[in-house]
Amino acid sequence: MTLMVVGSIAIDSVQTPRGEASEALGGSACYFAYAASYFAPVRVVGVVGDDFPEDFLGILNERDEIDVSGVKQESGKTFRWKGRYHRNMNNRDTLEVQLNVFGEFDPVIPDAYRDSPYVFLANGSPTVQRKVLHQVNKPKLVVADTMDLWIETARDDLTQLLKEVDGLVLNDSEALMLTEEDLIVTAGKKILDMGPSFVIVKKGEHGAMFFGEDVTVTLPAFPTGQVVDPTGAGDSFAGGLMGYLASQDKLDGETLKRAMAYGTIVASLTVEDYSLNQIRVTDRDQIDKRLATFRDMLLLP
Amino acid sequence: MTLMVVGSIAIDSVQTPRGEASEALGGSACYFAYAASYFAPVRVVGVVGDDFPEDFLGILNERDEIDVSGVKQESGKTFRWKGRYHRNMNNRDTLEVQLNVFGEFDPVIPDAYRDSPYVFLANGSPTVQRKVLHQVNKPKLVVADTMDLWIETARDDLTQLLKEVDGLVLNDSEALMLTEEDLIVTAGKKILDMGPSFVIVKKGEHGAMFFGEDVTVTLPAFPTGQVVDPTGAGDSFAGGLMGYLASQDKLDGETLKRAMAYGTIVASLTVEDYSLNQIRVTDRDQIDKRLATFRDMLLLP
Repeated sequence: MTLMVVGSIAIDSVQTPRGEASEALGGSACYFAYAASYFAPVRVVGVVGDDFPEDFLGILNERDEIDVSGVKQESGKTFRWKGRYHRNMNNRDTLEVQLNVFGEFDPVIPDAYRDSPYVFLANGSPTVQRKVLHQVNKPKLVVADTMDLWIETARDDLTQLLKEVDGLVLNDSEALMLTEEDLIVTAGKKILDMGPSFVIVKKGEHGAMFFGEDVTVTLPAFPTGQVVDPTGAGDSFAGGLMGYLASQDKLDGETLKRAMAYGTIVASLTVEDYSLNQIRVTDRDQIDKRLATFRDMLLLP
Repeated sequence: MTLMVVGSIAIDSVQTPRGEASEALGGSACYFAYAASYFAPVRVVGVVGDDFPEDFLGILNERDEIDVSGVKQESGKTFRWKGRYHRNMNNRDTLEVQLNVFGEFDPVIPDAYRDSPYVFLANGSPTVQRKVLHQVNKPKLVVADTMDLWIETARDDLTQLLKEVDGLVLNDSEALMLTEEDLIVTAGKKILDMGPSFVIVKKGEHGAMFFGEDVTVTLPAFPTGQVVDPTGAGDSFAGGLMGYLASQDKLDGETLKRAMAYGTIVASLTVEDYSLNQIRVTDRDQIDKRLATFRDMLLLP
C-alpha cells in the first residue's frame, strides 16, 4: 500500500559533541520518506525554496520508492534549522530557525496523491494538518506527529485533530505536557481518551512506548555504540513504523509490534551519521539483520 | 545456592506526588533480601540501632528464606533517610540523612556466612565492601553496587574493588560519572576494562542495560501504571537478579537475561506501594505471571 507524508524539507546545520555538519539535507518529510521507503512506496508533499541545491533534489530523487512530484519549489529560501546537541546527545538547543517558504506552507495535495491509503502528518501546525486531512479520500490509516509549540499555542486545533486521526506520535515530554500528567504510562492512556485509537510515545535513547485500547508495549532503543547525530531519529522511527504498516496493510497487535521494532531499527541507523547519510546507504538486508539481533536481545528465555 | 547481602537497614521517610510514608522500613539490604528471597535463600549482614521497632524486626523475620542472624543491634539510633520525589518520580531530593549506627558499620561476617557462594555488596564505601570481600571464602560470584558519593570521594578504593568483583551494578548517571563518558553504551563497555566481567546500568523508569564481554542487553522497565514510591527499586532489581542467578547457579547469556528480567519484574512490584509493602505480599506466582506478560510484550514476531 502507498504511504503519503506531508512535512518539512530543511537545510540543517548541527553541532554535536562528535563534530558538526553544515547546510545538510534534513526535515521531517525527508527522514520519514527515506526510512519508510525500505518497506513501501512513499509520496512526499513539501516545499523548498529556489535556493534548494541540485544535489539535495538528487538525493530525494535517487530512490524509486520515493515519489517527490508533490514537492513544490517556491521563490524564496528553504526552511533552515541550526541546532547544538548537549553532551548526552539526548537534549539539544535550537540556535536558529528560519521558516522561510515553509512558514507559508499551505499544502495542496496533488490529485494523484488523494487516494493514498496511509497518511502521515509530520509535525506541523494542527490547522495545516487538518487541511491536509480534508484533501484525502477516506484513508485507511492517518497518523499525526505534534510538538510542544502546538500544544502551547494551538491546543484547540490539536484537540480537534486528535478526533480525526487514528494515531498520534509524540515525544515523552510532549505527552506529559499535553495531558498535564507526570508519568508516561498515565499520559499515554489519557491521550487515548482524546480520540486516537493509539498513541506512540518516543523516548529518544530510551526507546518508545505504544498505547492502544487493550495493549501497552515498551521497546528499548537499539543500543548502538555510535551516536553521531540524533537529528531525524524520531521521524525515521515514524517512517519505519508507518512504512511497515503500509506494507502489511493490517493493524493487529503483532504487526504493530513489529512496526515499532522496525521504526526502532531505522532510527538507530539514522543516528549513526549526519543528515541522511546512513539511512541513504542502508538496505533492507542490513535493517533485517539488525532487527534479528534486536529480536534475539529481547527474547526472554 | 545461598546468597549473602551486606547493606543498609534504614528507617525511611518519603514524600511523593502521591502521598507520603513516615518512618517506614527501608535500606538496600531489606529491599534486596525480600526481592531475592522469592528465588533463593538469603543471608543478611547489617546493623540496626536500639530504637529499631519490634515490628520491623518482625518483618525481617517473617520469611523463612531470609536469615537475619547476621544483623547486629547496637546502641544508638538506626540509619534514617528522608527524601522527596519530584513529579516525574524519576528524580528525588534527599532532605535528611542520619547515618547513626550505620556510619560506623564495620561488618563482621558471621562464621556461618563465610561460605556464601553468591555475594552482593550493596551500596557502601568501597573500603568496607573490600573488607567484606576478604572475609568470605572463594565465593562463586560477587557483585557490588556503588554510587556517586564513592566515585567522588573514594575513587582509588573503588578502582581496586572493581578488580576484585565479578559484576558491578550502578545507575546511568553514575556510570557516566565513573567513566567521564557521555553515552551509556560507551560507559558500560569502558567499565568492563576496569575489571568486572559484567556491568549492569540501571536507568530507573527506562529499564536497565547489561554489558558483558561479548554481549549487550537492553531491557525496558515493566510499564506499571501505578508508581507510588520508587524507593528501593534499584535494590529490588539487584535482589531479583542475584536471587535468580543463585537459584540457577550458572552464568550463561540466557540465564543472565532471565535474571535481568526477574530483576525488572520485582522492581516494578516494589514501586507500586510504599516501603516493602508490595514486595512483602507478592509471591512467586505473581512474579512469574508478570514475567510472562513482559516476555510476550518483548517477543517480536
